[in-house]
Order: sequence, then structure tokens, then C-alpha cells
Amino acid sequence: MKNYCFGIDVGGTTVKMGLFQIDGQLLDKWEIPTRTEDSGKAILPDIAAYALAKLVEKNISREDVAGIGIGVPGPINAEGVVPHTANLGWGYKEVTRELSELTGLVCRGGNDANVAALGEMWKGAAAGHNSGVMVTLGTGVGGGIIIDGQIVVGTNGAGGEIGHIHVDDDIPWFCGCGNQGCLEQVASANGIVSLAKWMQQEKTEQTVLELETMTAKDVWDAVKEGDEFSCKVAERFGKYLGLALANIASTVDPEVFVIGGGVSKAGPVILDYIRKYYVKYTFKGCRDVEFVLATLGNDAGIFGSAKLVIEE
Amino acid sequence: MKNYCFGIDVGGTTVKMGLFQIDGQLLDKWEIPTRTEDSGKAILPDIAAYALAKLVEKNISREDVAGIGIGVPGPINAEGVVPHTANLGWGYKEVTRELSELTGLVCRGGNDANVAALGEMWKGAAAGHNSGVMVTLGTGVGGGIIIDGQIVVGTNGAGGEIGHIHVDDDIPWFCGCGNQGCLEQVASANGIVSLAKWMQQEKTEQTVLELETMTAKDVWDAVKEGDEFSCKVAERFGKYLGLALANIASTVDPEVFVIGGGVSKAGPVILDYIRKYYVKYTFKGCRDVEFVLATLGNDAGIFGSAKLVIEE
Repeated sequence: MKNYCFGIDVGGTTVKMGLFQIDGQLLDKWEIPTRTEDSGKAILPDIAAYALAKLVEKNISREDVAGIGIGVPGPINAEGVVPHTANLGWGYKEVTRELSELTGLVCRGGNDANVAALGEMWKGAAAGHNSGVMVTLGTGVGGGIIIDGQIVVGTNGAGGEIGHIHVDDDIPWFCGCGNQGCLEQVASANGIVSLAKWMQQEKTEQTVLELETMTAKDVWDAVKEGDEFSCKVAERFGKYLGLALANIASTVDPEVFVIGGGVSKAGPVILDYIRKYYVKYTFKGCRDVEFVLATLGNDAGIFGSAKLVIEE
Repeated sequence: MKNYCFGIDVGGTTVKMGLFQIDGQLLDKWEIPTRTEDSGKAILPDIAAYALAKLVEKNISREDVAGIGIGVPGPINAEGVVPHTANLGWGYKEVTRELSELTGLVCRGGNDANVAALGEMWKGAAAGHNSGVMVTLGTGVGGGIIIDGQIVVGTNGAGGEIGHIHVDDDIPWFCGCGNQGCLEQVASANGIVSLAKWMQQEKTEQTVLELETMTAKDVWDAVKEGDEFSCKVAERFGKYLGLALANIASTVDPEVFVIGGGVSKAGPVILDYIRKYYVKYTFKGCRDVEFVLATLGNDAGIFGSAKLVIEE
């Protein structure tokens, strides 16, 4: 049995890299810049070079490495092919084949939000569970569906595109995807600010929020101080997210929901608002699902990518 | 390799039974009454007796039977245990263990809507597909999610409980599940009638419908004749179902949606209304999913149950 593997998480500005024992112990992690110039042609060679150099540094034989898992910001199919990734400069790219040729290692790929979910299920907040759904509330809203320990990739790589669940017919502005009414428009870090500005029109109460300059963190800080308007925003956020998760539960009935991303740093208070509406909307049989906050933070992606190449 | 298997579909009044070759050819099918008296204690012995008698009749050795699959109307967990099934009289029941002991055959179980989905994926409208979602529009709304050829059973046996996806905050009456706003309330055969009666309050146009006595079939017949009010009901039905399926697509991104159950007998017209709103609400990457009408009718359950005991 091989003893090591790599987990790679490619972002728009940096690539996070981790060297793991196959039992999940993180031995080393580091970052390199994502060189997106020239259609991102240096990205995979950079990753390969730093991975192989790390093996030399640690005196690990390539034969003792189970593989290299890679998470990318966009759809990637079961064959490891990315059709197009805007923020890396890539057009069509056979990511796993190329990275495998560059390293001589087995390579598997996944979408970044999906592998983060797998990471949290493996060694994070949902460790020990077999099926779970992670929602990443960051700049956008990402997600990952894990069933029987496997990522639900989907036919078009859109499995777990939770941010684009439709939650409201009345949202007057457009989502980046071109639709109107997506969860991401009202539950991401940007979305919470947009939601608060939208609700400002019907606001009658005083608020500590500086409505022009506020961030999502400001909203949650104000919620914790009991600011009435901010609490209304939190209720609406909870309604949208609770509704989306309730409908996901009626579809795949997971053991656990993991809430991660920057917005989740507000802490357990966000779970209270989500759960309140989840319980209202969900099928009775699914009411007792567990809600947890993510624990791996920015390392979820390298953990989950590493798990892609580990068979259990 | 064994050559035969049974597929059983337990309903509230009759049990449908099928003897199959393991390549999926249906050799014989028949029905027996569901004896729900005395807490339904005769149901499994009846099934066992008729299955074993069929082997004698066909001169098939029990050793040549791969197993007996059974679909039941309610939740059943991965161990084949039913916690409670109201319309069969059962309390807690270890269905697959009991049926296995009664027959000496391997036994696997599933929820009836889930196994119907598996049947349509195996030998019905979605044959050749690997992942799909079936919606059964009958007295209620059932569903089944198939990913990589496997049923998504769910933690509480609630995988595919599509009928309880929340689609409208304003529905004033209650669903049988205790919630308000479930898809089943407006998209099942009964639900379409309820929807039409609800919409009657805002109706201004003439209609051929007899609003007190109409059935779902009457509504769809009127739609085909161009009845203006009925077309509005169909639009609203399409909006609810299209929205629910769009949100399912953002979760599991299937290859195909199969629409079955009594309501689907109205034909392709219902797909037109569903697809119109599906395209409006779904994530762009999922727009090209295939929509098909179920083809196995009442036999979907025996096909899917049989498939449960066939490994491929």
C-alpha cells in the first residue's frame, strides 16, 4: 500500500498544495501563485514541479505516492476534463490527464466546492458521516453533495450547484448565472449585503448598519447586538437558506449539513436562523438532520482533493 | 450465474408479482390481494407462498433464483426494515429478513416510488441512462433519485420525497404530511383539482370544467381543447413542477427526468408545461436535460424491485 498523496486546491490567485499521509494526516502545506497569464498554461506545470520537488525534499519515492487530487474552480467531468474556466484563463483542458503526464502520478479531479465538501466529510466537521451536504457561503454560494462517501458530480458537473437553487420570484436584480431569484443572490457574503439593501426599502426601524458601506460581517455583528433591522435580514437569510436545504433534504435526505465559507465565521447564530426555517419547510422525516459549522476552513479543499485519490 | 428473480410491488389493495429472467425479460406477472387485516401479518407469507408455487409451476429450481426484490409503500431503510406502514397495517417490520426466511432467497427492499424509478431507468423510458429522477404524479406525488444506477435511499428513507418539496408559501390548505406548500398539494391528481378550485377564486374567464366534480383528467382534456382557464391551471402546475425539478437539477444534475403516474397519461402536453418553467428556473448548465414520459406503467415497480437483486 502506498503511504502518501497530494491534495491540490486551485484558486484564482493562489494554488494551495498539501502533502498527506493516506490516513489523512497533513504533513506539509504551502501555496504557490496561480499564473493565469497565457491562458493559464503554467498552472499545471507549476503544480507538478512543486509536488515533485516536495517529494525530493521529504525523501519520498514517487512509487510511494497514491496519487494527486486536484480541485478546480468550475465544472470538471468524471474524466477530469474542464470545458472552460474563466478565472484561470483555461479553455478546454484535460486537467487530470495533463497533470498525470507531468507527474507520473495517478490524478483525479473535482470541482472546488465539491472537494471541500468531501474534505469536511472526511476529516472536518462531518467526519464519521457517510452522506452529507456542504454549503459554502463565500463570495458566491457553492455546495457539494456527498452520498455513500462519493461526490455527486452530476451529468454536467453541476451536482451541488446549491447557489443556483431558486428561492424567490421577486428578487429584482440578476444573478451572475443570468437567472433571477438564486440563493447565491441573497445568502453569499455579497448576497447578504444585497439583501439588506433591498430590505432597506421597507425598513422602518433604526439600525446601527451603515447601509452604503456595510459588509456581511457587519450585519451579523449587528445581529449579535440585537439590532432589529439586522435581525430581520437574518430571518430572511435563514428563510432562503432553510428553504433551499429543506428541499435538498426531500431530494437526497443527508445525515448532516455543513455550513462553511466566510459567512459561517459569524458562528452558531447563523445555524439558529437556518434551522428555524429548515424545520418549518422540511419533510417531517428529515427534521432531525444535524447542522454543523465547517472546521477545516481554507484547508477543506486540499483535504478533499487528497481524498479523491484514496480508495477505502 | 443464476437465471431468474422475482420483483414484488406491494400496494394497499393488491400485491403485484413478477418472475423475471435476470436480463430483464418479464416471464410472468400476476396479482394477489393485500391482506391488511391482523396488522398485515399474512402479506409476506402470501408473497412467499405464491413465489415458491410459481417456481414449482415453471419447474425452476430455487438455486437458480438470484433473489426476490420487494417495493413497499413507505420508508424502508438499507437493512430492509420498515418502521411503520399505515396502509398495510404493519408496525415495525423486518421485511427483507422475514421474506428471506420464508423463501430461502436473498431479499432486498425499497420504497415503491424509488423502485419504480429504478424500473424505468432499467427497462423503461430512461433505459440506457445512468442517473435520472422519476416523478410519479398519482394520488400523491412520489419520486426516486437514481445516481450511478443506485437508488438514493437517504438517511431516513426520505430520498426522492419530491412530493414534499416546498413550492409556494401561499397555499392555504395543509398537505397530508402536515406542512403547507408541498408540491404534492398542487401537482398530484388530487392536487391539480385542488389547484383548479383554488384558482377558481381569481377566475374571470368561462371554462368547460365542472368545477365541483372535475378530475385531473378533465383539466388536461380541457387544456387540449384550448380551454383558457384550464390552460392557466396547467401553467401554474408547470411552474410548480418545473421549479421543483430545476432545484433538484441544481442538487444532483441528472441525465433525465421521467414523469409517470396517472397524471402523466395526459401525454406530452404536460412535459411542455413542465419544461417551460424548468428552463426558466434551472441553472444554465442543466438546461438540456431530457424529459420523458414513463413507459412501464403499473409494471415499473416489479421491474425495479427485480433489479434490486441483480448485480451488474
